[in-house]
Amino acid sequence: MRELTVDLGERSYPIYIGHGILAQAGELFVKHGIGKGSPLLIVTDEHVAKRHLSKVSDTLEKTGYSTVSYTVAAGERSKSLRVLEEVVTAALQAGLDRKSTVIALGGGVVGDLAGFVAASYMRGIRFVQIPTTILAHDSSVGGKVAVNHPLAKNIIGAFHQPEMVLYDTSTLQTLPDREVRAGLAEMVKHGLIWDAEFTTWLEENAQKLVSLDAAALEHGLYQGCKVKSIVVSQDEKENGLRAILNLGHTIGHALEAVAQYNELLHGEAISIGMMGSAKLAVKLGYSEHIYTATKRILQAFGLPTRLPAHLDTDAIMSAMMHDKKFSEGNMVFIVPTAIGKVEINKNVSAAWVRDVVDELKQEA
Amino acid sequence: MRELTVDLGERSYPIYIGHGILAQAGELFVKHGIGKGSPLLIVTDEHVAKRHLSKVSDTLEKTGYSTVSYTVAAGERSKSLRVLEEVVTAALQAGLDRKSTVIALGGGVVGDLAGFVAASYMRGIRFVQIPTTILAHDSSVGGKVAVNHPLAKNIIGAFHQPEMVLYDTSTLQTLPDREVRAGLAEMVKHGLIWDAEFTTWLEENAQKLVSLDAAALEHGLYQGCKVKSIVVSQDEKENGLRAILNLGHTIGHALEAVAQYNELLHGEAISIGMMGSAKLAVKLGYSEHIYTATKRILQAFGLPTRLPAHLDTDAIMSAMMHDKKFSEGNMVFIVPTAIGKVEINKNVSAAWVRDVVDELKQEA
Repeated sequence: MRELTVDLGERSYPIYIGHGILAQAGELFVKHGIGKGSPLLIVTDEHVAKRHLSKVSDTLEKTGYSTVSYTVAAGERSKSLRVLEEVVTAALQAGLDRKSTVIALGGGVVGDLAGFVAASYMRGIRFVQIPTTILAHDSSVGGKVAVNHPLAKNIIGAFHQPEMVLYDTSTLQTLPDREVRAGLAEMVKHGLIWDAEFTTWLEENAQKLVSLDAAALEHGLYQGCKVKSIVVSQDEKENGLRAILNLGHTIGHALEAVAQYNELLHGEAISIGMMGSAKLAVKLGYSEHIYTATKRILQAFGLPTRLPAHLDTDAIMSAMMHDKKFSEGNMVFIVPTAIGKVEINKNVSAAWVRDVVDELKQEA
Repeated sequence: MRELTVDLGERSYPIYIGHGILAQAGELFVKHGIGKGSPLLIVTDEHVAKRHLSKVSDTLEKTGYSTVSYTVAAGERSKSLRVLEEVVTAALQAGLDRKSTVIALGGGVVGDLAGFVAASYMRGIRFVQIPTTILAHDSSVGGKVAVNHPLAKNIIGAFHQPEMVLYDTSTLQTLPDREVRAGLAEMVKHGLIWDAEFTTWLEENAQKLVSLDAAALEHGLYQGCKVKSIVVSQDEKENGLRAILNLGHTIGHALEAVAQYNELLHGEAISIGMMGSAKLAVKLGYSEHIYTATKRILQAFGLPTRLPAHLDTDAIMSAMMHDKKFSEGNMVFIVPTAIGKVEINKNVSAAWVRDVVDELKQEA
């Protein structure tokens, strides 16, 4: 088991990563001062519930905790105010009080939803993340929780740090191949924004990671979480540096929206988005190598580098204008300046972005 | 104009109280660093909109701000996730960004709703309170914002401090008499929990306050806000001391719920609740004077001291068990130990509370 601390002063918390560590969940809860007098609410989705819910609740009950669970439908649609209200109903009926803890058992959707329940229930109770996807190595670190609004993703939310993150890599073994690859896109992003050496390691170990080699996975998740936690430690509330985590996300979010959240997985959308950022970098005068290396790495993971031609450019541009990363009308983009290094560029012209979107449709 | 600071470190903010001060809203916004590059969203209700909305938006527009407004139905029902979603729709359509400010123009419902919009929109933007009721002198100070769930009041919310509170006492002149009295109940509560001298002043000036005498109102609101801000400064997140602000609220909230939020105003319910706390005090061995003085003061304001006999005692008790002030099954009550002084009593037996509820139905 590897351990990593997200350093946020009095809100610091550990991330535990290892094969089979869920069996130790009860002890770790006790170690971190989670009391047994108030019920724990496990929020999960229908798929994860089948595979992992009884394991988690059994180990906690065995340690003397009282648990209840609420299972939502799998998929982004559960990140809504309507489902939030349902989870709160379950919380009230189970008698959750201010000393209770909400456990997010699942991927990013469950983490964001359950996290916002924890952030807002009685104005904030404790929260533990148990991610079961690779993608969630990103979303489970940093305390950003939210639900969607019909007009915009993640627009209603909070910063609410968990008490801890328990990452049991054995839960990843049943993930479909497409989801594995998409999840690894965020890992690649963590390399590209911060760590050239890790990026090289990623490219060399792409096959091992895609085939869920345990040692490679543990190392990759550890390094990915580490980059994320360093950035988050320096800018908890996203006032500056943290924006670099959005590499590929401005275009990516727009693509997800225009594809109505059912054609592209989040990781696939940001893979295309990272290609867009690399293209912008070259337009801005940075080395052509950024573009070729980014493409090569993404292809090593079998991630898409081409924007589906039937997605309308106008619709993509207009979706970006609703994206919250535009402050006071300026178009802000995270642009790589080298592999392992990015800048926050606040003066990217919309015309260039439009060109990039069109060019991405022609990408080989 | 009187000014008071709520001392919360980097989240400190001023409360301005005075007749006609809304005319200075624009200058005060500028003084407190609210930028003109992002739109302001004024959230208000249908009644307040008619009387005060154009005044507020005009003075802000005249100073160079761009404003939009969203008007909700008056009443507690607007404190829902459904209405929250509507306000967020308006915010998105108006292009509110992370530098925007939400203005709550109205009473407690609007303050709580708009405050939770500000707390959660893009994970938190700025917020200004412009209270237009006496009751709101309580709710606008301290940063507690929330919406209701069908099963429980204020259960989904946040702690989100405003940038400032602008209290223009001229907006109070059109309040119906019953609402004035109910609003003064929170002012009486601030005396009872903290300040015997202020409590005496309140009893002596009850008639002036009820008839909205400008000088009395300014003094009463100033002192009431001062008590609240002292308590909040010492316990921002309600981990201890802040609970004393709940004097009368445990029973009061239950009464509101059982009366389906349409028979008793909040201030009326807590007036009866404060009578209940005074009765518990006597049962716990404190001076009989607490009961007689509490009753005399509430009656001076024409506030109810008797619990409507048709409200079912079982239903009231069961509503209290959902109240979030019960931690781990213990029944916690704020009990006066003298006039101007209270204790947080964590061992109040449910049987005594039931007796008190029954006795309150017999009160003269």
